[in-house]
Amino acid sequence: MYHVVCRITLRPSILDPQGKAIHHALHDLGQTAVQGVRVGKRIELTIDAESEEAAREAASRACETLLANAVMEDFEVESATELEAA
Amino acid sequence: MYHVVCRITLRPSILDPQGKAIHHALHDLGQTAVQGVRVGKRIELTIDAESEEAAREAASRACETLLANAVMEDFEVESATELEAA
Repeated sequence: MYHVVCRITLRPSILDPQGKAIHHALHDLGQTAVQGVRVGKRIELTIDAESEEAAREAASRACETLLANAVMEDFEVESATELEAA
Repeated sequence: MYHVVCRITLRPSILDPQGKAIHHALHDLGQTAVQGVRVGKRIELTIDAESEEAAREAASRACETLLANAVMEDFEVESATELEAA
């Protein structure tokens, strides 16, 4: 069993209105050091697989077929860690 | 200028209906190796700071005051990378 972390981010060319809203809100709170904000998703999957490679492949497939919008988003499998058997 | 990545995740004790929905959808797509899904946020901040420590502190403050819901969510500053001056 593997614990796999995927990140899904908007492509750099795509505007991020949610990030803009957070940026403005931080400025309103006086946190003017923040110059830009981009919001993405971080998805943790628990995957039953024989190897780390198989777990990463299953996670990629999940991102491709369901989680990421290939037109606007990039995804990356960040890590895959084997869970100890209970 | 620093590029700081924060992750915001639901606390383990909090139910994640979005994750459950994704889990079911993956099963419907035949991806039955996936045993569990948790959805979190990944927020990238560009922060004008003198040092990595100051950048991480500014990011923590942003999470505490605005980005994370302390009742239901945990946050962590994952990384802070200095950007090259233009």
